[in-house]
Amino acid sequence: MRLGHLARAAPLLVRTAATAATAYPAAALKAGDALRSRRRRFTEDDVAAYAGVSGDRNPVHLDDAFARGTGGFQRGRVVHGMLVASLFPALIAAHFPGAVYASQSLKFAAPVYVGDEVVAQVQALQINAAGARHIVKFATKCFTDDDQTLAIDGEA
Amino acid sequence: MRLGHLARAAPLLVRTAATAATAYPAAALKAGDALRSRRRRFTEDDVAAYAGVSGDRNPVHLDDAFARGTGGFQRGRVVHGMLVASLFPALIAAHFPGAVYASQSLKFAAPVYVGDEVVAQVQALQINAAGARHIVKFATKCFTDDDQTLAIDGEA
Repeated sequence: MRLGHLARAAPLLVRTAATAATAYPAAALKAGDALRSRRRRFTEDDVAAYAGVSGDRNPVHLDDAFARGTGGFQRGRVVHGMLVASLFPALIAAHFPGAVYASQSLKFAAPVYVGDEVVAQVQALQINAAGARHIVKFATKCFTDDDQTLAIDGEA
Repeated sequence: MRLGHLARAAPLLVRTAATAATAYPAAALKAGDALRSRRRRFTEDDVAAYAGVSGDRNPVHLDDAFARGTGGFQRGRVVHGMLVASLFPALIAAHFPGAVYASQSLKFAAPVYVGDEVVAQVQALQINAAGARHIVKFATKCFTDDDQTLAIDGEA
């Protein structure tokens, strides 16, 4: 897959399944190019599995009554923010196998409830060649609500 | 558990199991107080479980030969950075059930290899009361190698 010919202005250029994307060389990537994940719902089972492996058993993720009350989340249990944010490296790795993450900033702007449909999007902001490697700065965004709500904003 | 009386200068004040920590009110937390997780090793099974739930199947996490070659990781497969970083919200939630994450910055400073022992540490930098809630800025660090190597640096 080559993205280099795509217009730079459009924020959403490629729709692809993160798990089935074709690898392409980072050299083909240009500033402005964007990648978008398949729509994904994190289920109760996903949240339980993540709570197990991460050890994060915050009741806002596991207990509807607690999430609504103490947590102040109207619709109950929310997905771990770091689990939603895992869509960014997943999306980048699906297109650039072997990509090594240097940093990530995350602003959790709106809750993602268990069962909500989310889409992750990364857009190349700046690309620097460092020998055989490329260092790419991506804007990373995650949306819910049919792209109406920005759930996570940040950079990688 | 009350941390308020602890000296502010010491960076590592409390050693406790993240999964068995006692909740205490955020009002007791003072700038400089630190929490530290139990030592943790992420196993091959943990990495596989995380790859499944996140969809991040970057071969640097799953394939020793690829990790050493293309990835440039001398000792082979590395743990997903976002999985290691999940120790921060896990640690915070263990002490402050119901804590809501607003943001997180992460700098992946050194690789964590599958099986490496890691320790997460969060230290309160700044605390603001907002009505009944407290907004706390934490320095978040994760170490490997018996605290000799800083693997992740950042703020939450």
